[in-house]
Amino acid sequence: MNLEYREFYRGRRVMVTGGLGFIGSNLARQLAALGADVLLVDSLIPDCGGNLFNIDGIEAKVRVNIADVRQQSTMNYLVRDREVIFSLAGQVSHIDSIRDPFTDLEINCRSQLTILEACRRHNPAAKVVYAGTRQVYGRPDYLPVNERHLVRPTDVNGINKVAGEYYHLVYNNVFGVRACSLRLTNVYGPRAQMKHSRYGVVNWFVRLAVDGETMKVFGDGTIQRDFLYVDDCVEAILLAAASDAARTEILNVGVDVPTTFRELAETLTTMTGARWEFAPFSAERKAQEPGDFYSDVSKIRRLLGWAPRTPLREGLEKTIAFYRVNKAHYW
Amino acid sequence: MNLEYREFYRGRRVMVTGGLGFIGSNLARQLAALGADVLLVDSLIPDCGGNLFNIDGIEAKVRVNIADVRQQSTMNYLVRDREVIFSLAGQVSHIDSIRDPFTDLEINCRSQLTILEACRRHNPAAKVVYAGTRQVYGRPDYLPVNERHLVRPTDVNGINKVAGEYYHLVYNNVFGVRACSLRLTNVYGPRAQMKHSRYGVVNWFVRLAVDGETMKVFGDGTIQRDFLYVDDCVEAILLAAASDAARTEILNVGVDVPTTFRELAETLTTMTGARWEFAPFSAERKAQEPGDFYSDVSKIRRLLGWAPRTPLREGLEKTIAFYRVNKAHYW
Repeated sequence: MNLEYREFYRGRRVMVTGGLGFIGSNLARQLAALGADVLLVDSLIPDCGGNLFNIDGIEAKVRVNIADVRQQSTMNYLVRDREVIFSLAGQVSHIDSIRDPFTDLEINCRSQLTILEACRRHNPAAKVVYAGTRQVYGRPDYLPVNERHLVRPTDVNGINKVAGEYYHLVYNNVFGVRACSLRLTNVYGPRAQMKHSRYGVVNWFVRLAVDGETMKVFGDGTIQRDFLYVDDCVEAILLAAASDAARTEILNVGVDVPTTFRELAETLTTMTGARWEFAPFSAERKAQEPGDFYSDVSKIRRLLGWAPRTPLREGLEKTIAFYRVNKAHYW
Repeated sequence: MNLEYREFYRGRRVMVTGGLGFIGSNLARQLAALGADVLLVDSLIPDCGGNLFNIDGIEAKVRVNIADVRQQSTMNYLVRDREVIFSLAGQVSHIDSIRDPFTDLEINCRSQLTILEACRRHNPAAKVVYAGTRQVYGRPDYLPVNERHLVRPTDVNGINKVAGEYYHLVYNNVFGVRACSLRLTNVYGPRAQMKHSRYGVVNWFVRLAVDGETMKVFGDGTIQRDFLYVDDCVEAILLAAASDAARTEILNVGVDVPTTFRELAETLTTMTGARWEFAPFSAERKAQEPGDFYSDVSKIRRLLGWAPRTPLREGLEKTIAFYRVNKAHYW
């Protein structure tokens, strides 16, 4: 693992949108530890990921600005002196995107134009790292899925996320804003939104396991996914911004060893004594369910020297330990 | 060529968004001739394609409703009794999309959600044919380009168009709205927007040739494109809506025999006596120029029996003849 990037962040003026959210706050903690000048932008929209407790203990090392990435004049101002912008703010629920596709469009698609226009007009030298998603691939034609795979999103959220990603590449190629996109797989770990089940399934299972409730495994439980521990995800993000090799690139950030939902539930059961059971898919969920997915991460390994380091069991242990202590702040 | 589709349209309640525009009005004329119940929706935004002269002679056979596809309540009402919706309204200038990306997003991306939500809530049985674009492929990896080619738009317009396309597939797969997308190549012919050069290059060259002005061929003129005569394009659209085989599909609509810009200019020169000359690319244009492109149309040939029928020279002759008579209405 290339750790030289750590020096890059000392005194570096960075901004994290969605900075009070799950991945954003874990990233913020690393940036603060590395001595960066950290500006966190978050709208604290209820039920999204923003949570002030996520920066517990680092309040003095970061600056928090409550704002919405949809607001052009605000973004114009905030980007001005930032050398690196981590664009993590987003609406991540597939189900919500189907119920209210316009809000999803505003947050995931239009706001990316807003941030990029702010950079184009007011800070064209900024580096921008966009948090994309493996969802854009839809139902894979082959496994593991590399970045050459067709983009074929199965829900509105996936469409808006891929439009947001493409904007970054066009602003990179046409206006010289230095941008890249990381297609993140299912990320789990401390500091996630845990109030409802519409976000990551691993964290929801952790909540059920911690509470001694029954985990529901849809279908026959054989669907495969790659579950990425948040610290590994943060490391990929830090590397991508620090390296020029990532510029203009789309990079998968995932795990090339898959886990089935049944294995996930069984692992949590052995760790916590919780129970799990099979449950049928709803029609809506079934129509948007992309089936087996896991990432080919050879490109990011080659370009940035990154690989996932945390075995599932270890990641789950850290996650469970965190929420056992802090659950009052998350559910 | 399968012509059975013609019967499908007798008395059929159809709606064409962008119905006073270039392709929309040519489609409207065919629909009127086939005896369909035709509703044309157009916003008549200046400098876009809408032109009341485009329906000259068929005014009594069509109903015109001036409205903007961005307006949800209007769309909710207009879609109600329509069996087929041809979704052709769009902002088609690459250059405008870079100057004002938000308007492009509103028209090409958000408005597609607006129309599809109108169908989902008020007319889920509607068939929707979306006018996509070959632009979504960006710089091709291989030629001719088939529908399996990666989507990699090189400008904001291409991104918004592909998001609009993906929405159709998701609303088809998740909500049962019967939709397909046709990825149209460079279409030329009568009834286009001819006031400025930001739309199709062939029609702009025709204007220059008709006026005896000099056509400017960018670069060395060897860039290849497939230029499709509008009547052939309209036939593909009519077939796609009439056939169940097109549902859920993305289909290229183009010409698998390419033409260089130099050949285009030389052909127009021999036909009209006009002049042409080489001109350098602007930096902005160069960055968005996707290079050689022509379509593999084997999929639509196989599924719908469609193929382009009009040779370039014949299409240009018809186009020139039309504008010589009607230029007062177009420039």
